[in-house]
Amino acid sequence: MTTVAVPVRAGAHAYPSATPTPVRLALLGVGQVGGALAALVARPPLSHQFHVESGLVRDLARERPGAEHLQLTANLRHALGGQPQPQIVIEALGGIEPALTLVLTALERGIPVVTANKSLLAAHGDVLIDAAGRAGVPLRYEAAVLAGVPFLGTFARRALARDITGFCGIVNGTTNFMLSRMAAGRTGFAEALAEAQRKGYAEPDPANDVNGVDAVEKLAVLLRHFGDWSVRTQDVDAQGIAAIEGDDLAAAVEFGGTLKSIVAADWREGSLSAFSGPSFLSDSHPLARVNGVQNAVSLRNRLSGDLFFAGAGAGPDVTAATLLDDAAEMCGETPRAEAPRTWKRATPSAPATGWFVRVSGDRLPADTSIADLCSAYGVWLRRTSEPRGDAPGRRWFLTHPCAPSQIADALRALESAAGCDTFRARILEA
Amino acid sequence: MTTVAVPVRAGAHAYPSATPTPVRLALLGVGQVGGALAALVARPPLSHQFHVESGLVRDLARERPGAEHLQLTANLRHALGGQPQPQIVIEALGGIEPALTLVLTALERGIPVVTANKSLLAAHGDVLIDAAGRAGVPLRYEAAVLAGVPFLGTFARRALARDITGFCGIVNGTTNFMLSRMAAGRTGFAEALAEAQRKGYAEPDPANDVNGVDAVEKLAVLLRHFGDWSVRTQDVDAQGIAAIEGDDLAAAVEFGGTLKSIVAADWREGSLSAFSGPSFLSDSHPLARVNGVQNAVSLRNRLSGDLFFAGAGAGPDVTAATLLDDAAEMCGETPRAEAPRTWKRATPSAPATGWFVRVSGDRLPADTSIADLCSAYGVWLRRTSEPRGDAPGRRWFLTHPCAPSQIADALRALESAAGCDTFRARILEA
Repeated sequence: MTTVAVPVRAGAHAYPSATPTPVRLALLGVGQVGGALAALVARPPLSHQFHVESGLVRDLARERPGAEHLQLTANLRHALGGQPQPQIVIEALGGIEPALTLVLTALERGIPVVTANKSLLAAHGDVLIDAAGRAGVPLRYEAAVLAGVPFLGTFARRALARDITGFCGIVNGTTNFMLSRMAAGRTGFAEALAEAQRKGYAEPDPANDVNGVDAVEKLAVLLRHFGDWSVRTQDVDAQGIAAIEGDDLAAAVEFGGTLKSIVAADWREGSLSAFSGPSFLSDSHPLARVNGVQNAVSLRNRLSGDLFFAGAGAGPDVTAATLLDDAAEMCGETPRAEAPRTWKRATPSAPATGWFVRVSGDRLPADTSIADLCSAYGVWLRRTSEPRGDAPGRRWFLTHPCAPSQIADALRALESAAGCDTFRARILEA
Repeated sequence: MTTVAVPVRAGAHAYPSATPTPVRLALLGVGQVGGALAALVARPPLSHQFHVESGLVRDLARERPGAEHLQLTANLRHALGGQPQPQIVIEALGGIEPALTLVLTALERGIPVVTANKSLLAAHGDVLIDAAGRAGVPLRYEAAVLAGVPFLGTFARRALARDITGFCGIVNGTTNFMLSRMAAGRTGFAEALAEAQRKGYAEPDPANDVNGVDAVEKLAVLLRHFGDWSVRTQDVDAQGIAAIEGDDLAAAVEFGGTLKSIVAADWREGSLSAFSGPSFLSDSHPLARVNGVQNAVSLRNRLSGDLFFAGAGAGPDVTAATLLDDAAEMCGETPRAEAPRTWKRATPSAPATGWFVRVSGDRLPADTSIADLCSAYGVWLRRTSEPRGDAPGRRWFLTHPCAPSQIADALRALESAAGCDTFRARILEA
C-alpha cells in the first residue's frame, strides 16, 4: 500500500528548500518597499529561490541604491516582463493606477500576484479576487494589514477559524505612535507628528495617516477578507486624529483609559456596523496596551471567542519580507478554481456607542446644566472630569451609549447655547 | 499567453468549495475531541467535505453520544482503515502508544496525518517530522499549542516570518484560569482548582496541568517548530504551580505585577536557554493581561520584533475544528519532499533571572538580615514587601538577576539559619 492520498507532483516549487532554478519575479514599483525587496532577493539564501527579472519604475533616471542590478523599465507594456513570462508579479506601486490594470492583466495571463496595496484592495478588491478566482491563480496580500504579523492568509485557508463575526483593531502605526507619545509625554499633536517624521514612522506627507484614509482602507480590506463585505470607504463613519489634543489624553487617563485610533466592525446579527476613528478605551481593553508603532487586531470567532494578533507596524524591510513570504507560500500551494465569493455590498451603519466628549469655552455652563441639555437629546452622562487648573475652560465627560445623530444634535445644541467648542470620540467597550 | 505559472491540477481537493466526493478520514480516538470532531463532520457543510470512515476506540462497548453513526473498531490493525485507504488520518488518542506506531505507519503508507497530541510531538516530533518529510506527506499539529489560535502552520510556510530567536507564552489554560482566580478573588489553590473542575476547564485528574507537564511538552513543541531544537522535557527547568498560595498573588499585586505560569526560551546568541514555571510579570508585560482560560505566545522575530498571538485555550469543539482546518488546508497544498530538518539536540540552560521569593516562618529575621545573608551568595534584593497584618510570618521580596544555583543556595542557607520555608518564582522581564 504505497498510494499517497495527494500525490507529489513533479516540478512543483519546493520551499524553503532550494529550487533548481529561482522563481522569476516581475517587480512593479522600486520605491522604498520594492527597493528593499530587490535588496533582499539579491542576497543568499533568497537569491537561490527568487530572481527579479524586471522592475517597473516611473523615472528611469532616478538613482535606486541597492537596486542597481535590476533590469528596469518605465514602459507599462514591458512591466509584466518578456518571454518566458514571470512566474509571480510583485506589486509595490501603491495607489490605484497603473496598479489595477497591471494586476488584472497579470491575473488574466495566469500569473500569480502578491501585493501590499491597501488602497487598491479597498477600492477594487472584489474585482481582483474575482479575476484571480476565475483564472485559478493566487492573489495574496498579507502585507496590506499588520504587514509584519502573518494572519490574513492563515484565515483564508481555514474555514472554521474564519467564522468571524466582527473585529476591532489598531491598524495605523503612525497615528498609534503619535497618540502613545501624546499620552506618555503630554505633548501636543504637532510635536508628536514631528517626532514621528523624525523617526521615519510618518511619511513626509502624513495626510493619509492623520486624516484616517489609511485606516479606513485597511478596515475595508479586513471587512472583505473576514466577512465578504464590500463597502466603499466613503460610506464608513471615519475620522482622523487631527482634532485630538494633548489635554484629551490626560483626561482619558483620568477616566482610567486612553485614546486610540480604532477600526471596528460587527455583523453578529447579520447587518453590518463599522467605524474608524479616535476612540476611548478603558485600560482593561486588550487594545489599550498596544503602544508605539505596534498594531493589533482582535477577531471575534463564533466558536473560540476573541483571537488577538499584534506586532510592529511594518517598515519597508518587513513589508518586503512579507511580500516574499507570500510569494514563497504560493509556490507550495495547489492553485484551484475557487468557488466564486458572494460579496455583500453594504453601507455600514454607524453604531450607537458611548462617547468621550471635550467641551471648551470661556464661560462653560455647570456640569449639571450640560447634563440637563444633553438628556433632552437622549444623551446621558456617565462620568465628568474633575476641574483642572492646567486646563481652564475645558471639561470632559463620558456618556452612555447613544446614536451618532443624538450626540451630534446634543453637542450642536450645547455649542450654540453656551458658545463653546466640542470634540468627541467613541467609547470602545471591551 | 495563457500559460499559468503553477498549473491547476485536475482532481486536487478544492476547499472551502465542495468536492465531488468527501475526503475519507480515519479517526484515531473517539473521546472528547474525537467525538466532537465526529459530530462536526456529521453535519453540513462539513459533511460535504469530509467523511469519517472508521474510528479507533479502546472500548467498543462504551456509549459515545454523537458518534453512533461511526464505524468503530478496537483492532489496531484495522485502525488505518481498509481499501481504499483513508486520505487523511486524524490522531486524537493522546499519549505515546499506540499513537506513535499508528502515525508512523500512516506516514509510511503515504497518508497525511493531523494530530493535537503534544505529548507525542514533544517526545517523538523529530522522528515523526522526519518520517513525514521522507514520505513527502504532510503532518500538521496546529491544535497542539494554542489550539484555537492558528499560528504554527502559518510560520511553517513563511521562512522570513519564521526567523525567530525566542519566545515566551502562557500555554496552559487550566493553570492560567486558576492563577487568575487566585489573583482576582484572593482564593487559595484548592478553591481555584475546584472551580476550574466545576467549569470543565480542568480534567478530573488535573495532575499534568498543575505539575507543569502539559506546559513543558508544549514548550518542547514550540522549540522544535520555531528553532529546530530537540530537547527532552526532563532536561528543562520546569515547575508546576502547586506551591503557589493566594497570598503570593496578593504580594505580586503589591509589587505591581502578577504571577503566571510561563514557558520561555531564548537562542539569540546561538545557545539555548529555556524554562517553564510560575513567574512574576510586571503589569506592563504583554502576558500580564492574559487572564482566565486565555493563552498567548509572544515570538521574537529578528526583523520585525515581537509578534503576539492570543486567544482562548481550547475545549474539545475548538480543538476538533482546528484539526479539521488542518485537514482541509492540506487538501489545498502541493505535497513535496522537504529538505530534511537538522535538529539541534540540546539541554537548555536555565537562565539567570530575577526572583520573586516568599519567606515564611514563626521567627523571621529582619529584612536587613535576609538581605545580608542573600548577598553572601551573590543574590541582591531589589524590593521587599511591606509587613502585612493579614499575612503574619510571611515576607516577599524581588531579587536582581542571578543564576538558579545562586538563589537555591541562598534560600537553602536562609532556611537553615532561620528555620523558615521559602518559595520562589522567576521574574520575567518585558
